[in-house]
Amino acid sequence: MLNNAKGVYIVAQTPFDEAGNVDLHSIDTLVDFYIQHGANGFTVLGVSGEAGKLNADEARQVAQRYIQRAGGLPVIIGVSNPSLAQLASFSNEAMDLGAAGVMIAPPSGLQTDEDLLGYFAEAFRRIEGTPTVLQDFPFASKVAMSVPLIHQLIERHAEIQLIKEEDLPCLNKISRLREGAGRRVAILTGNNAMYLPLELQRGADGPMAGFSYPEMLSQVYALHQQGRADEADDLFDLYLPLLRYEAMGFWGVCARKEVMRRRGAIRHATLRTPGPKLSGHDLAELDRLVARLERRLGR
Amino acid sequence: MLNNAKGVYIVAQTPFDEAGNVDLHSIDTLVDFYIQHGANGFTVLGVSGEAGKLNADEARQVAQRYIQRAGGLPVIIGVSNPSLAQLASFSNEAMDLGAAGVMIAPPSGLQTDEDLLGYFAEAFRRIEGTPTVLQDFPFASKVAMSVPLIHQLIERHAEIQLIKEEDLPCLNKISRLREGAGRRVAILTGNNAMYLPLELQRGADGPMAGFSYPEMLSQVYALHQQGRADEADDLFDLYLPLLRYEAMGFWGVCARKEVMRRRGAIRHATLRTPGPKLSGHDLAELDRLVARLERRLGR
Amino acid sequence: MLNNAKGVYIVAQTPFDEAGNVDLHSIDTLVDFYIQHGANGFTVLGVSGEAGKLNADEARQVAQRYIQRAGGLPVIIGVSNPSLAQLASFSNEAMDLGAAGVMIAPPSGLQTDEDLLGYFAEAFRRIEGTPTVLQDFPFASKVAMSVPLIHQLIERHAEIQLIKEEDLPCLNKISRLREGAGRRVAILTGNNAMYLPLELQRGADGPMAGFSYPEMLSQVYALHQQGRADEADDLFDLYLPLLRYEAMGFWGVCARKEVMRRRGAIRHATLRTPGPKLSGHDLAELDRLVARLERRLGR
Amino acid sequence: MLNNAKGVYIVAQTPFDEAGNVDLHSIDTLVDFYIQHGANGFTVLGVSGEAGKLNADEARQVAQRYIQRAGGLPVIIGVSNPSLAQLASFSNEAMDLGAAGVMIAPPSGLQTDEDLLGYFAEAFRRIEGTPTVLQDFPFASKVAMSVPLIHQLIERHAEIQLIKEEDLPCLNKISRLREGAGRRVAILTGNNAMYLPLELQRGADGPMAGFSYPEMLSQVYALHQQGRADEADDLFDLYLPLLRYEAMGFWGVCARKEVMRRRGAIRHATLRTPGPKLSGHDLAELDRLVARLERRLGR
Repeated sequence: MLNNAKGVYIVAQTPFDEAGNVDLHSIDTLVDFYIQHGANGFTVLGVSGEAGKLNADEARQVAQRYIQRAGGLPVIIGVSNPSLAQLASFSNEAMDLGAAGVMIAPPSGLQTDEDLLGYFAEAFRRIEGTPTVLQDFPFASKVAMSVPLIHQLIERHAEIQLIKEEDLPCLNKISRLREGAGRRVAILTGNNAMYLPLELQRGADGPMAGFSYPEMLSQVYALHQQGRADEADDLFDLYLPLLRYEAMGFWGVCARKEVMRRRGAIRHATLRTPGPKLSGHDLAELDRLVARLERRLGR
Repeated sequence: MLNNAKGVYIVAQTPFDEAGNVDLHSIDTLVDFYIQHGANGFTVLGVSGEAGKLNADEARQVAQRYIQRAGGLPVIIGVSNPSLAQLASFSNEAMDLGAAGVMIAPPSGLQTDEDLLGYFAEAFRRIEGTPTVLQDFPFASKVAMSVPLIHQLIERHAEIQLIKEEDLPCLNKISRLREGAGRRVAILTGNNAMYLPLELQRGADGPMAGFSYPEMLSQVYALHQQGRADEADDLFDLYLPLLRYEAMGFWGVCARKEVMRRRGAIRHATLRTPGPKLSGHDLAELDRLVARLERRLGR
Repeated sequence: MLNNAKGVYIVAQTPFDEAGNVDLHSIDTLVDFYIQHGANGFTVLGVSGEAGKLNADEARQVAQRYIQRAGGLPVIIGVSNPSLAQLASFSNEAMDLGAAGVMIAPPSGLQTDEDLLGYFAEAFRRIEGTPTVLQDFPFASKVAMSVPLIHQLIERHAEIQLIKEEDLPCLNKISRLREGAGRRVAILTGNNAMYLPLELQRGADGPMAGFSYPEMLSQVYALHQQGRADEADDLFDLYLPLLRYEAMGFWGVCARKEVMRRRGAIRHATLRTPGPKLSGHDLAELDRLVARLERRLGR
Repeated sequence: MLNNAKGVYIVAQTPFDEAGNVDLHSIDTLVDFYIQHGANGFTVLGVSGEAGKLNADEARQVAQRYIQRAGGLPVIIGVSNPSLAQLASFSNEAMDLGAAGVMIAPPSGLQTDEDLLGYFAEAFRRIEGTPTVLQDFPFASKVAMSVPLIHQLIERHAEIQLIKEEDLPCLNKISRLREGAGRRVAILTGNNAMYLPLELQRGADGPMAGFSYPEMLSQVYALHQQGRADEADDLFDLYLPLLRYEAMGFWGVCARKEVMRRRGAIRHATLRTPGPKLSGHDLAELDRLVARLERRLGR
């Protein structure tokens, strides 16, 4: 089913209250906000979802709440873990909770193609049959996967139904992934959507990314689907100044949460420690970026 | 003197002919092109200047030609090298040729603050008195330097007159570097100028970056100097779609050279091997990005 | 109390049965074997204890069983985790179970001294008062800590009572750590005990290491304590050929488990997947190494 | 011809005088010392030969002097360089000077098999026909190469005539390299000879390593050739305590140079900066290790 994924899969934030506890209530409002702005699915507990800061119980609760509130829209749960035992047990829990699939990036330390083939053979032996998103995000994972290797993995493991492609440069990699003669999988793209219209032209099936104005993602996708490439670009370019601001790692996620707080999607903009906080200077910058955007949007 | 650097220091490309030989004649036209579009100085043989692919003789020739053609504008020569012996001998050559200073990033493998303090103590023992740009570019160097460490280095080494700041996120790092109580040094910013107007607001003295439309860099800088921040942003935003295209590593440099070739600045867009080549798909994308930009500029 | 640790702290293996399940019964026999051969304490769930392959429940069970069987000897539990939330919750569990302390290595990705000081400030905010072993093992953690930084950490955090020093080269680092003017902490050394007699001469308080003949560790330590340095070296040198065989990463751990199986300490030599298996060639090599050792020992 | 290499290829040090200048006269005495103790060939300007600290002129002089003095014994020149232009020009110079071949390790930053195949295709396009040692030393190069990849490289590039194998664990990798069905190449082993007798049993053709007692390398090799495996082990084990002391990175190289200075092979034990110096403590340790060795050798 994920083979045919298309549209906007939101990389969802994890909301915390001011004390740093998971704010389950804000998950509900955040899901509603995302859906209202055009989300077709969700990816929960990715890197920018601060998965690395949650313990096992919290991760389960977050996954469960997202799945419950999504009301049938597909929810993919990030389960990457240096321990295959933990990866497998959380993967099984996620599927039992009703996830549409899991997302896996290889753990840092793997280097050669032989290592990677061995790693995924063992991983899929443990979660056989689980629909899986293969995340190609070397900036975060520190592991590089070439196009021939990804094609080999697709060939060997029917579990892989979707590639989240966010290597850089990304465009020719998407073209080459699409040119492969093998089984078709979906390709959604990350990198904070910085190259979205170009990626769609290259054959991507949509974004798997987060942004404080998710309506941009769905509108650009819709315009692209209608063959209105110039309008897609025009719209995208309006948002690009803010988009590139949010693209600066966890500090950008912090900015994103703050904008979504202002828009009423969540109650608090807190990132869990260890994580950045916005300074007065940052907030003033954000005010100005948002004001400029709103003005351009004619509001 | 570099202490007072301000304005646009162009990170200059190294032109090659179709066979991959250094094209000295194109250096002349390229320098003219940069000056005509507002360059106040040059940084030659940086990462995107393909310094890593030149042998010692070629590096010397390129440095010499740039210095000759620049007609008195300051030229900074990148001399980073895993070998301190080579760093020192090329540094001395560059200064003898008339360079305004050298640029150094620490070699990969250095990790602790103690390592870094030791490395620069030895480096400056060998090139004592040479005006130096300290390049803080962990994405390429694989070496992270904190603000307190950079302040210590400035304190210890009068040679450091300018920081090229291109860590990410960059904005608060610029603010913190500026807040230091010690000796004032210039701060110019890199990262392909993706955050230029914000960096100027944070106290940076200008960009040290490359772009196929260098007039954007000088116009944004001039508007900022005149306190016309909104106009600076408006202008910057027009160029941002192309700017972010050129920000994709060496493949982006390839695109940049192609645009500058079309603009008559160099004869060939060749990157030396090993390096990417633009596909038909890439060229079509570039056609479209440039056409959209020119249209917005009202040409 | 860990401030005064001395003697042999065994880095304990985690036994698995042939299906890869934790073999709790073999923990009992293994603890007995270690104690019988002179162990003064235990470090459980370190790198070579395959901690990275256990899920949270298994880790808790292993810690509990070791603590129960150790009969009052101090047991240190490895709790390193990229997630501070998980580190803190497992740390608290371990202390509740009766651990003497926890062991922490910084997570990969931390680079500057400022990063590391910030990390440990946050970690100890969460596990305030917990006796802690700071593990300096850059080969595995990918994080380098200089002597001045370690001294600063000791100064700031009373929780740090013991340094497990296993950077390479190790000897001058031990000397420099000892020369610090600050609060005295214990220093135990790792690196598979490859440099044990030299490390003791430099001021280390004993080994924190694993070996299939743990009696060597305790005998060398005892001879050193009695000032019989040459006899300590003579004894150590007998074991060195096997010791260096076991020093080859997880493959060496595999060999170690096989020798301990033969000696009756555990029922199975299995490493949990992903992990190496010994080939026929490996087993023959091991036969020969052990036979040579036993012959030299006059058995 | 390197296809048939066997015996002891010494990884040769580069001697410096007390001011850090290359000491060409000591190269002559050092070559004589190595030959007198059984060297069958030399590898010059490797990692432990401090190649990374020489400039291009110095590297050429060192290569030339070694080749001249070696009197017809094969000399392999290390030419690894992040710049393929510099690699190729130094490689050509080395062959013109009479080298038997060059040694190449891939530059750090290469990650996937596809990257590595591309890199070597380009490298061998530039140095076509040059007999080449492929160095597999991930600890220093930060690049991992799997057995299938090395087999592919051998298949594609007739230039590769010898593998210097020093990955860890090394033994099964040697067995697997030997089991390949393709063209036979020589395999010499590094890792400071820490595993030499075992490596010879696995099918290696000899050591390519440095040690202050090179006679151990040649005697162990000779005993192995005569099928006297136990005597080879007995002899090796005598030297192992000093061998493992010299195995600690550049600090170990420092110790090695000091022992060779005492034995009259070179005039100064200096390492070029940046590099370690031996403390009084280190020297006393070395005195004791050497005295113990000499006593065991019955001198």
